[in-house]
Amino acid sequence: MRTLVDLNADAGESFGRWRLGDDARLIPLVTSVNIACGWHAGDPATMSRSVELARDGRTSIGAHPGFPDLIGFGRRALSMSPGEAARACLYQFGALQAIAARHGAVISHVKPHGALYGLAVRDDAVAEAVVEAFAAAAPGVRVVLLAGPVAERLAERGFPVVREAFADLDYDESGHIIIEPDPRAKSPQRCADQAVAVLRGEVTSVAGTPIAVDADTICLHGDRPNAAEIAAAIRDRFAAEGVRLAVMAEVADARS
Amino acid sequence: MRTLVDLNADAGESFGRWRLGDDARLIPLVTSVNIACGWHAGDPATMSRSVELARDGRTSIGAHPGFPDLIGFGRRALSMSPGEAARACLYQFGALQAIAARHGAVISHVKPHGALYGLAVRDDAVAEAVVEAFAAAAPGVRVVLLAGPVAERLAERGFPVVREAFADLDYDESGHIIIEPDPRAKSPQRCADQAVAVLRGEVTSVAGTPIAVDADTICLHGDRPNAAEIAAAIRDRFAAEGVRLAVMAEVADARS
Amino acid sequence: MRTLVDLNADAGESFGRWRLGDDARLIPLVTSVNIACGWHAGDPATMSRSVELARDGRTSIGAHPGFPDLIGFGRRALSMSPGEAARACLYQFGALQAIAARHGAVISHVKPHGALYGLAVRDDAVAEAVVEAFAAAAPGVRVVLLAGPVAERLAERGFPVVREAFADLDYDESGHIIIEPDPRAKSPQRCADQAVAVLRGEVTSVAGTPIAVDADTICLHGDRPNAAEIAAAIRDRFAAEGVRLAVMAEVADARS
Amino acid sequence: MRTLVDLNADAGESFGRWRLGDDARLIPLVTSVNIACGWHAGDPATMSRSVELARDGRTSIGAHPGFPDLIGFGRRALSMSPGEAARACLYQFGALQAIAARHGAVISHVKPHGALYGLAVRDDAVAEAVVEAFAAAAPGVRVVLLAGPVAERLAERGFPVVREAFADLDYDESGHIIIEPDPRAKSPQRCADQAVAVLRGEVTSVAGTPIAVDADTICLHGDRPNAAEIAAAIRDRFAAEGVRLAVMAEVADARS
Repeated sequence: MRTLVDLNADAGESFGRWRLGDDARLIPLVTSVNIACGWHAGDPATMSRSVELARDGRTSIGAHPGFPDLIGFGRRALSMSPGEAARACLYQFGALQAIAARHGAVISHVKPHGALYGLAVRDDAVAEAVVEAFAAAAPGVRVVLLAGPVAERLAERGFPVVREAFADLDYDESGHIIIEPDPRAKSPQRCADQAVAVLRGEVTSVAGTPIAVDADTICLHGDRPNAAEIAAAIRDRFAAEGVRLAVMAEVADARS
Repeated sequence: MRTLVDLNADAGESFGRWRLGDDARLIPLVTSVNIACGWHAGDPATMSRSVELARDGRTSIGAHPGFPDLIGFGRRALSMSPGEAARACLYQFGALQAIAARHGAVISHVKPHGALYGLAVRDDAVAEAVVEAFAAAAPGVRVVLLAGPVAERLAERGFPVVREAFADLDYDESGHIIIEPDPRAKSPQRCADQAVAVLRGEVTSVAGTPIAVDADTICLHGDRPNAAEIAAAIRDRFAAEGVRLAVMAEVADARS
Repeated sequence: MRTLVDLNADAGESFGRWRLGDDARLIPLVTSVNIACGWHAGDPATMSRSVELARDGRTSIGAHPGFPDLIGFGRRALSMSPGEAARACLYQFGALQAIAARHGAVISHVKPHGALYGLAVRDDAVAEAVVEAFAAAAPGVRVVLLAGPVAERLAERGFPVVREAFADLDYDESGHIIIEPDPRAKSPQRCADQAVAVLRGEVTSVAGTPIAVDADTICLHGDRPNAAEIAAAIRDRFAAEGVRLAVMAEVADARS
Repeated sequence: MRTLVDLNADAGESFGRWRLGDDARLIPLVTSVNIACGWHAGDPATMSRSVELARDGRTSIGAHPGFPDLIGFGRRALSMSPGEAARACLYQFGALQAIAARHGAVISHVKPHGALYGLAVRDDAVAEAVVEAFAAAAPGVRVVLLAGPVAERLAERGFPVVREAFADLDYDESGHIIIEPDPRAKSPQRCADQAVAVLRGEVTSVAGTPIAVDADTICLHGDRPNAAEIAAAIRDRFAAEGVRLAVMAEVADARS
């Protein structure tokens, strides 16, 4: 069983007058956060606050670019060419980077959000365009992708891909995650069980078949009503199992 | 008479399916371009194309952040606090910076657009918040402001402000420029006359009174139908007058 | 003391993934609702749900058009010409009307939101453009404006203006309301006191001076955390004082 | 050969500062226009101008709702549920209806735009949700759909569907149109040939096979650079062939 892993959560998902997620509670409980960058959620003031919380909590900061779809929270599929997807990620990453720099913070990784993540982890050409864009524009920045064939192929080619698995989402038979448009509270213990299963290298699909996973980071969703409870349960379970949490870069470096 | 100056133009003002300005003709005729960053005009693909044109033409690249007002092209006043204005500029600057980095290009300056520029050059607190934000987040990046009292005060405090005057806009009695919502073609010779007047240190307001100006860069608007003709006329006049054009950083450095 | 009045509240202010206000509790407690129409808040699904709640609760439905400023929730001033403001109101009103028609409901009134309301009640030309647009496009629809000079002048000219006063906002010396960007909970009893003061024809400004008011409808804000408690307190007070609540159209008809 | 048909074009596709299409020339050449409603193109001022042109030219007015995707001009596929698609159409239709009412004009039809049209004509559930929504909300308004199986099924169930074919787009083997993201000029004579082919009941796919069509209206795209020339060529050819043009409602009524 793997004993070193990163725990990441989406954050900064408020927008203007509207609040979503409890960043102040959640961010200190994880080792990396993915901060929404304004296209599906987030606005400059929210981004700024989330960056400060992460910086103060020594949590590793990532950009969480999404589709330009505020009404759909970036969870509706939108057809984008590989080039469009890469530029969408760069644009949002850069926006967060400048706001982070204002607070003396740096961005360690980028993780596409929602349906843009779905597009990237299913379509080699999109994933490749994204990782190539970051390799050129921001060489030290890692790209988080679902642990699976697309991520493996890009990692083999030398791109700094971080393999991700999910504590709070179900997997289908083909090893893809099943996105919920509007996440509900889930049993923290069941999520902790699944996080440990990831470390053991195998999760179970909704149909009961085993799915092999090899992940450096485990995700939970910040807009799930009990996200902080889930994060706490995972931390407790990891402590009991002798698993150490570390920021994404440290875990990814340890692999190589 | 001043014999060294930068000539800047707004560019990248197309948006999605809609074309505006003739970047391919205009960009090689100026020494600096201000590229729209997606809030009032511009989109990632347009930004990418404009960056490539500027890079290939050895034109200095600036970010041109505006109000979040596509319908109004950022030319309608919007009340923003100093903090909001600063974050709006950072966000858009960063977005362009990441796209530029993808093409091996860097951003030398930032110049607020339209009504956001109007807000900054009239309101000390806004201008100060913007220059402080860039001093912290992007130390080498210069902020372009209307040559006038606000810019002077910030320059005296040591901020890297670039003083700007206009070849293609009229000035009112108080030394402020008169923004046109929808610029029309103007006489290239009259614009060249005004550019030379700037270099001599004095323009004439619409009421006929003299306005003292001390500017390092002269602006013309890329969405004016005959922008390229105006740029060419200014270049010819400058050549005849023995004025040398240089990129913004060189001109600003020469002052100090 | 006036004994017949309408009680109106803003509703439908959720947006996509984000929830704001408790429409299900609040709508049955008021006699009229103003439903956000998508520019500052609201989206087609939210509009549809709010219309159904109002229809089922026999609450009179109004359109609540705002500035195109989701990040600022329509509470930041934006310069719009009278024609732009009128078309912005028509556009949003029509959008709600079609969605309401789908549910067999009709729109009785229109009330500009936030800073667009502020613009209309301070600027005769804007208010006039809006009421003229509705007189032409939707003859039966009333326009709600702050009880005060602008509303009086338009009512005298025969436009179907509904005069409004506020239970949960302070007034300044000139009789204008003081908008809070992010409303906090307020004492329900103090709001009920102010509602009764409105019916007596005089409220007190923050500086202690009396402001005469002559209002057909009293507003409270749906995004105030304890909006439903305030509505309930006002209803109780009105019952104790022998004041009857009726939908906006009935109250406006009773005046004439 | 059919001798009565409607000729429709998309119009009102400018947006804010950006111009697209030549409405003033094109609108008088067609019998129906589909006016963009602000989500993929168009804004209230543009909508207002296009309505006036159509009203003055006695051209039948339709709403042309699209996906909320300005950058992609509504030509990128977006996953929407049937209910979301129906509400998106109602919202935009209503917005145009109110603006049209201001000018004394009425809306005769609705035609989804771009990828939303593509979704509706491929997915029975979406098309059905849209036509049911309009049957409830705006009983006299016709819904324009691609002449083909989905339109036939809905027409058989009694919905007021108008069957459409295209003069300026190619057809694939399955009878679907091939959307161009960025339409270029096309031979007016070839478009006129295809318009006549539609009236004869059969067009030819790009692979050379015959596609049966039974259409009441023929479309051409207003954002094609030579749209007005194409419209004129079609009118000339129709005159030569003895085909009479009439507004959509008259043609649809003649069928039944």
